[in-house]
Amino acid sequence: MRATVMRNHKLAVADIPQPKPGAGEVLVKTLACGICGSDLHTLKHGERLVAASRRSGAPFVMDLTRDVVMGHEFCAEIVDFGPNTQRRFKPGQRVCSIPVLVRPTGVEGIGYSNDNPGGYGEYMRLTEGLLLEVPNGLSTEHAALTEPMAVGCHAVEKAQLTKDDGALVIGCGPVGLAVIAALRLKGARRIVAADFSPRRRELAQKLGADLAVDPKQRSPFESWTQMASAGSNAPALPPGLGGPASNPAVIFECVGVPGVIDSIMLSAPRNARVVVAGVCMERDSFEPFFGIAKELNIQFVLGYSPEEFAATLRNIAEGRIDVAPLITGKVGVEGVAQAFEDLASPETHAKILVEPWRS
Amino acid sequence: MRATVMRNHKLAVADIPQPKPGAGEVLVKTLACGICGSDLHTLKHGERLVAASRRSGAPFVMDLTRDVVMGHEFCAEIVDFGPNTQRRFKPGQRVCSIPVLVRPTGVEGIGYSNDNPGGYGEYMRLTEGLLLEVPNGLSTEHAALTEPMAVGCHAVEKAQLTKDDGALVIGCGPVGLAVIAALRLKGARRIVAADFSPRRRELAQKLGADLAVDPKQRSPFESWTQMASAGSNAPALPPGLGGPASNPAVIFECVGVPGVIDSIMLSAPRNARVVVAGVCMERDSFEPFFGIAKELNIQFVLGYSPEEFAATLRNIAEGRIDVAPLITGKVGVEGVAQAFEDLASPETHAKILVEPWRS
Repeated sequence: MRATVMRNHKLAVADIPQPKPGAGEVLVKTLACGICGSDLHTLKHGERLVAASRRSGAPFVMDLTRDVVMGHEFCAEIVDFGPNTQRRFKPGQRVCSIPVLVRPTGVEGIGYSNDNPGGYGEYMRLTEGLLLEVPNGLSTEHAALTEPMAVGCHAVEKAQLTKDDGALVIGCGPVGLAVIAALRLKGARRIVAADFSPRRRELAQKLGADLAVDPKQRSPFESWTQMASAGSNAPALPPGLGGPASNPAVIFECVGVPGVIDSIMLSAPRNARVVVAGVCMERDSFEPFFGIAKELNIQFVLGYSPEEFAATLRNIAEGRIDVAPLITGKVGVEGVAQAFEDLASPETHAKILVEPWRS
Repeated sequence: MRATVMRNHKLAVADIPQPKPGAGEVLVKTLACGICGSDLHTLKHGERLVAASRRSGAPFVMDLTRDVVMGHEFCAEIVDFGPNTQRRFKPGQRVCSIPVLVRPTGVEGIGYSNDNPGGYGEYMRLTEGLLLEVPNGLSTEHAALTEPMAVGCHAVEKAQLTKDDGALVIGCGPVGLAVIAALRLKGARRIVAADFSPRRRELAQKLGADLAVDPKQRSPFESWTQMASAGSNAPALPPGLGGPASNPAVIFECVGVPGVIDSIMLSAPRNARVVVAGVCMERDSFEPFFGIAKELNIQFVLGYSPEEFAATLRNIAEGRIDVAPLITGKVGVEGVAQAFEDLASPETHAKILVEPWRS
């Protein structure tokens, strides 16, 4: 099959063997697969990812000397069935799935794997029990956005938002935009978003931010504090007594480059919760004193639960999350390398979909 | 009055003016005041503390070119009353207080202040409304331990311990020991403590640790995981699905030197909560990837609420926390400088009390 492979730290188009579905697995044809910021990171910092995965004891770690077919945000169509399958869906049925295989030997990733090709290739194998039907009426393109939008849903769930919490979203790439959509869906008020790019600020407002600020022009923390104090009934408490928060806040870090966590810790109000949804693969530094003096809480997040993923697909299908503004381009396997470069500019693109069947 | 003052980054004995109690304040004679690790940090890293306090927007910041009388862990005796006081307690009554003054202009610290001398001096002024009576039968020395033990109580409260949580305490200095005592009081099971010092491991077990390990001999995380899995009913879940924790854990960082948070993040199990109670005043570095991959939560803590402080005094008075093993020395104002040096060795000392009235 044709696929865009990561080989020697570059992307290349190659003909590779079609994956074989094992027991309880199905063979699917990839209809559309989003390019994720983590894929860009992995192409650039693959060695770091592998080293860090090894150090943290991950069970499966990619071998970068072998080919990898990335792509974990997909909508696909059932083609064939492996042994011991229930065949609950027919060939031709469109499906989504969380990008893992559940096997007797353990859970394996799809996409960040040498053995389980992701959606940058024409075919994938998926675990039958994890398949979700894409409802009629929902476009393939929109269904493919389930995975990145589920990331936002999970980040907001982990934030344990209360009614009075204002939210500040730092960075309006796909992760930040997914967080904004999830915050809006959750009924959050006072959502302030920050990004240097006018295009991304526009998208942030389309997806539900009350205010989108340019950090060059105005501190997002100031904007946020002004909005929060205008809408909050909390009394001002003397600082330093360890009492309840005078200024409850959740700040979502959706940038994922070194220095951002530190700058959030410096500017965050007392008792703020910081949800780190950006995936920084480099070593970072920070000033513990800021965390201590303000009793900050930092929640790192990754992925989503199967339930959050399924709920996100339903929310997209039923029009509660509008993903249409996010899709800014489509390419075939030959276009992936260029798309990776294009995604570096926030003014042009948000989400580019790979359609491996395109000639 | 006689006091140990911090002057030009050194400790010296000096005769300084006795503080005058303002409106709503009382004059007290210091009976005993513990030497805190933060005082040692401040003598060594005062400039950093001041710079970080300024950057984080603290309302009152010490001027290190002027004298500072440190000491914020005290038991004192009422001597005189300022204007507008209720005089609810009589002169001679022994009292404890959180180390702040609540003034019409704001809350000011006692000890880390140029204007409000702490317990390394013969006299202090305290806010009358914050005074807590030391019950008859409770020794002055033990009452003076209220403040550091309240730090442990607060750290454990912020950890939001659930019944199944095992706890790992990294570092068994006074903060770690206070955390262990608070964990035991809270009914926590499976408390593993780690410290390089045999003396401190012995203290950890006296205060309630089930196991105290030498990190040189055996990984505290391994010891903890073994204990946790022996006592837990939680089923093992496949990793990477963002589901509930398969290995719930709270890890208390009670060391406060650079690198410890990073090493905890590397070794912590998935979904662990890290409570940072150690006060690191230096810049630190870490690998965000470990936090992300394991969805760690980091809660920085500082101080305690007035309620936690009062509850701790009651717990000590009623014998629910035994602080006696912690007290390893007593000095007058002339002995403070030497005591600071002695406290560098974990084998000799845990808590040294300053008794400024000693000749």
